[in-house]
Amino acid sequence: MSTIGIAIVGAAGYGGQELLRLVATHPVFRVVHAGSRTHGGREVSEVLPQLQGFYRGLRFAGVETGIPAEAAAVVLAAPHGAARTLWPEIVAGRPDLRVVDLSADFRLKDRAAFDAYYGGAHPSLDAALDFVYGVPETNREAIRRARHVANPGCFATGAVLALAPLAEAGALRGDVCIAATTGSSGSGAEPKEGTHHPERAQDMRAYKVLAHQHLPEIEQELRRISGGGLFELSMVPQSGPFSRGIFTVAQLRVPDGVDAPALFRARYAREPFVRLRAETPALRHVVRTNFCDVAVVQKGTKVAVLSALDNLVKGMSGQALQNLNLMFELEETAGLLVPGANP
Amino acid sequence: MSTIGIAIVGAAGYGGQELLRLVATHPVFRVVHAGSRTHGGREVSEVLPQLQGFYRGLRFAGVETGIPAEAAAVVLAAPHGAARTLWPEIVAGRPDLRVVDLSADFRLKDRAAFDAYYGGAHPSLDAALDFVYGVPETNREAIRRARHVANPGCFATGAVLALAPLAEAGALRGDVCIAATTGSSGSGAEPKEGTHHPERAQDMRAYKVLAHQHLPEIEQELRRISGGGLFELSMVPQSGPFSRGIFTVAQLRVPDGVDAPALFRARYAREPFVRLRAETPALRHVVRTNFCDVAVVQKGTKVAVLSALDNLVKGMSGQALQNLNLMFELEETAGLLVPGANP
Amino acid sequence: MSTIGIAIVGAAGYGGQELLRLVATHPVFRVVHAGSRTHGGREVSEVLPQLQGFYRGLRFAGVETGIPAEAAAVVLAAPHGAARTLWPEIVAGRPDLRVVDLSADFRLKDRAAFDAYYGGAHPSLDAALDFVYGVPETNREAIRRARHVANPGCFATGAVLALAPLAEAGALRGDVCIAATTGSSGSGAEPKEGTHHPERAQDMRAYKVLAHQHLPEIEQELRRISGGGLFELSMVPQSGPFSRGIFTVAQLRVPDGVDAPALFRARYAREPFVRLRAETPALRHVVRTNFCDVAVVQKGTKVAVLSALDNLVKGMSGQALQNLNLMFELEETAGLLVPGANP
Amino acid sequence: MSTIGIAIVGAAGYGGQELLRLVATHPVFRVVHAGSRTHGGREVSEVLPQLQGFYRGLRFAGVETGIPAEAAAVVLAAPHGAARTLWPEIVAGRPDLRVVDLSADFRLKDRAAFDAYYGGAHPSLDAALDFVYGVPETNREAIRRARHVANPGCFATGAVLALAPLAEAGALRGDVCIAATTGSSGSGAEPKEGTHHPERAQDMRAYKVLAHQHLPEIEQELRRISGGGLFELSMVPQSGPFSRGIFTVAQLRVPDGVDAPALFRARYAREPFVRLRAETPALRHVVRTNFCDVAVVQKGTKVAVLSALDNLVKGMSGQALQNLNLMFELEETAGLLVPGANP
Repeated sequence: MSTIGIAIVGAAGYGGQELLRLVATHPVFRVVHAGSRTHGGREVSEVLPQLQGFYRGLRFAGVETGIPAEAAAVVLAAPHGAARTLWPEIVAGRPDLRVVDLSADFRLKDRAAFDAYYGGAHPSLDAALDFVYGVPETNREAIRRARHVANPGCFATGAVLALAPLAEAGALRGDVCIAATTGSSGSGAEPKEGTHHPERAQDMRAYKVLAHQHLPEIEQELRRISGGGLFELSMVPQSGPFSRGIFTVAQLRVPDGVDAPALFRARYAREPFVRLRAETPALRHVVRTNFCDVAVVQKGTKVAVLSALDNLVKGMSGQALQNLNLMFELEETAGLLVPGANP
Repeated sequence: MSTIGIAIVGAAGYGGQELLRLVATHPVFRVVHAGSRTHGGREVSEVLPQLQGFYRGLRFAGVETGIPAEAAAVVLAAPHGAARTLWPEIVAGRPDLRVVDLSADFRLKDRAAFDAYYGGAHPSLDAALDFVYGVPETNREAIRRARHVANPGCFATGAVLALAPLAEAGALRGDVCIAATTGSSGSGAEPKEGTHHPERAQDMRAYKVLAHQHLPEIEQELRRISGGGLFELSMVPQSGPFSRGIFTVAQLRVPDGVDAPALFRARYAREPFVRLRAETPALRHVVRTNFCDVAVVQKGTKVAVLSALDNLVKGMSGQALQNLNLMFELEETAGLLVPGANP
Repeated sequence: MSTIGIAIVGAAGYGGQELLRLVATHPVFRVVHAGSRTHGGREVSEVLPQLQGFYRGLRFAGVETGIPAEAAAVVLAAPHGAARTLWPEIVAGRPDLRVVDLSADFRLKDRAAFDAYYGGAHPSLDAALDFVYGVPETNREAIRRARHVANPGCFATGAVLALAPLAEAGALRGDVCIAATTGSSGSGAEPKEGTHHPERAQDMRAYKVLAHQHLPEIEQELRRISGGGLFELSMVPQSGPFSRGIFTVAQLRVPDGVDAPALFRARYAREPFVRLRAETPALRHVVRTNFCDVAVVQKGTKVAVLSALDNLVKGMSGQALQNLNLMFELEETAGLLVPGANP
Repeated sequence: MSTIGIAIVGAAGYGGQELLRLVATHPVFRVVHAGSRTHGGREVSEVLPQLQGFYRGLRFAGVETGIPAEAAAVVLAAPHGAARTLWPEIVAGRPDLRVVDLSADFRLKDRAAFDAYYGGAHPSLDAALDFVYGVPETNREAIRRARHVANPGCFATGAVLALAPLAEAGALRGDVCIAATTGSSGSGAEPKEGTHHPERAQDMRAYKVLAHQHLPEIEQELRRISGGGLFELSMVPQSGPFSRGIFTVAQLRVPDGVDAPALFRARYAREPFVRLRAETPALRHVVRTNFCDVAVVQKGTKVAVLSALDNLVKGMSGQALQNLNLMFELEETAGLLVPGANP
């Protein structure tokens, strides 16, 4: 099979590093451009020692270097806010270029929601209308046809997959309480106070309580799926003392007669990357994989849904690759079907 | 000041070890009996190397040894189910003996609730009526007068302190969704699958979803405080990859006009061991202390309350010592007012 | 390419689980038998949830089930001591069966060394003479021709790879001080006191100081390589608060004129799984990979060599697979050339 | 007993925070000045939430504020390099002021050693001759009489206590190989690449191999104790995935006839903060305490000594407090005799 060239903008960040890790064993995609603001000119495997022995000869391209013509797709793995600025330049004269943006810049269709949670100038916000929201499990056909995909946030992926079967069945109503815990790699490659090891090593804390910026995209997607829906989400994001993973707990009440576990079994029976668990998912079983494991428990009309995923894989670069597989009509699981580990 | 002798039954378990740690620097209490099923006859500081240099000469007493007369109080730190069996023997002929039981055996007044969550024979369940539920912040005066105190569960302490101010104000209504995460020491000193380091080190998972045995005692205490109350609790307990601590998230809707943060500020202004935080509590600041740190966030009528405590201290042996201080008319904070650390 | 069937004895232990994880994406090997003392009859992917979606239909075989004829190779992943008992039964009538034993039962050629460090009856110790010691980097050609390979211990792999270039060059002399730290998965799947999470989570300690049972196999291999050699090893094994990995520090003095870094550069230039680092290897870059990263620092005649590997991969099942690749004349790196991650 | 005022310069760093934690329960010392470059004017317990409920009213003093007259002692907890600059100002007109410097600025008597490992201008290097090296176990009487104490480095404390009994007995000879592992809090309060949680959480790596700046002070102290001595130290410092602690392994050969364990038993029998362990010390038992636990294993003439301490307590602020206790003729253990914990 011939290869398909992809470019990564922001390849030295955690999203970019993870994509490089995954593409290294992908049967079709080949990295033809690894852009980096800070490492332009240096060998990729020297800057990123985990890649020593891979990508021989590939060097980071500085910001002055454009996306090469041999790239059929580009993954924007730059910090939030960069994609919106780079946008005109990236797509200029490349109507066929497939784009997956890992940032939040093109996820929200609603300017008010964008302004409320992100703010700042957004010269290309109209382009968001052209982006497809990249959860394959809820949006597969649109992604196949899309040129531009807005890759969802990590919390958003965990929450959407935990609630989509209820939304589709019209069973998402009333208050939905989400408490989700993220690993430290979600904060990115730059050392910060919140990821300072001495203080994070055995800590747990919350942040952006009832105010996390992934809320509007979760709502947007669940309302789209449910065709509206009288539900209201609240979310308490927590920081856990682990490196990778998001563990999500959603609690809600379903209408009388709804059998939530049965809905999930039917809905996810054929999904390659969603696995149902009897009692609970566990982060350790999904870390470094593209799986999102889900469990549903119901007592009367009370339902708890739990989901676990790796924030850098199914919550970011693995899902981007899954989307690219769809956009290029490859096997959806290509390069991604790798088992997890236990210890 | 003269000393007061206390006996510990089950002194080699984690509850007992923590009590030994705390009593070592207490100005009044002195351990006169450290009971252990398995270590009878051995030096305490040899079995528990962290205590080397303390308790010189103290040896564990085997089960055949009764509570000595010089003990004015006994702390039952045996596994759940043991206290109910030992009960008649412990109190026989000792009407004045103060007892703090760390187990669940005497917490519930309602036999149906006990049977639903614990089951098994309970020859002394009537004695539970005589026990005071040992959360000093909600029950201080009763504890002062009590001979027998049922020390609350670790999850229960975190949840009760997160919700008591709302319950007292009549603002606890409707569905209350609790998601709480515990450290591994909550499982006790015996190695188990769930505390096997290779699988716990970077994991997160849930257990007893919507079915944890601390639910009925939380309900019992909050209903007592609120004088009834039309609320319904659900709880998803999670296991986190840290050794000590419980981090609790409660989400609910309050009646119009309720200013939840103001209620908490007023209610906890004078509590020595509850500290209000602006944004979030953090486990690292309470670990190895008797503090329970709390934060309250409100958006419209949606409220999130977060609490953090050390499951072995405020969630167990520290709270037992706080109760003993009250029962013996000592300074409530004696031996417990030690600051936490940051890294 | 047609497939080659392999059998795993002890497939539910950590060595077996890791082999199942690796073989799942191997291009040639196919698991035809997964033996387990305790899980006979159960679905592999139900007992090991990380494998859900893989090995559909494969069930664990109980101990009463023999190695099937379609297995061209067997990996013995049973606890130490089991292989020696099973040996006659496994090879009876199967002269061509390739065997890789993960245990220590057939590593030592010298009965006195075996008795000193392991002891117990060993009815098949003579068979050890027929086993090749399975470090491909020092023993590649012998492994290619071997029917039976004794896979090295995890500490032994780290130490042999850290010292082999010096041994080959005749520069291994005098006292060699090894201090190595292992992750908790090295203790196996069974919960034990030493792997109890509350006590291991932030701990560090040593064990079997100057007396670890991997010492004689390290010595045996280094003496074989060096053709004797006037050196004496000492080793202090430590337990670290991480799940996977062995980090080895060896300190020694080399003869005047020896340029240790140059020896390593020359020796490991073409090894696919040994990577030289400028300053230090890091566990995080080798975890879940078959790489052993090495750094060498020299000041005058003092030399420090550091190596890092994943105890379950290069220290165990990955190396077993590398050996099997060699034994079946496949590409040595087949199924093993996967990059590590950074966070 | 009346109180003694102490001032802390650099009180918001990890050394300062730890000293504030320890002094909070000290029977005699009282913090009268908490200096901070960055937090001048802010409440201590607001900047450091672990101290909420303590030090009510105390505010950080900016750099423009001098040491107040009511301070009988000052602890310099500023970054390395600051003390040497501040020195003239601090001692001007205060001949009686007791000073404990936590930095390396005044530890080395030898300018060549200082320049080789630290470099940079040192306007006050002569003052170092007046400083006493602050390991109470080896230097108790000199500390009692000292006005100025140079508090040892954390690695240095672990190594000196592991080797002092051999040095005193004239048994420290030949090559001494040290491999020591530090927790992340040793890097200080400022987030850095090396303490970025996603990369440190389960990692192990080395740094400054054979070149750590604590080597010359270890040598200086051991040579002083041994009266010279034909030994040569090498050290490989490692970074472990824990927050607090230093675990040190020293391997060496002793002269024939030396019984190393007996030397240690005799030497440390009466030391209040050094505890001998039978097999190994463990970090978890010393964390947050001022203890240094030590074990000695001997096979023939090979000896391994292991020590474990908390880098912020016995390796820094606890030892500073122990030194202050001596300098003010208080009980040496005042405020420091607190047991450790197990989980």
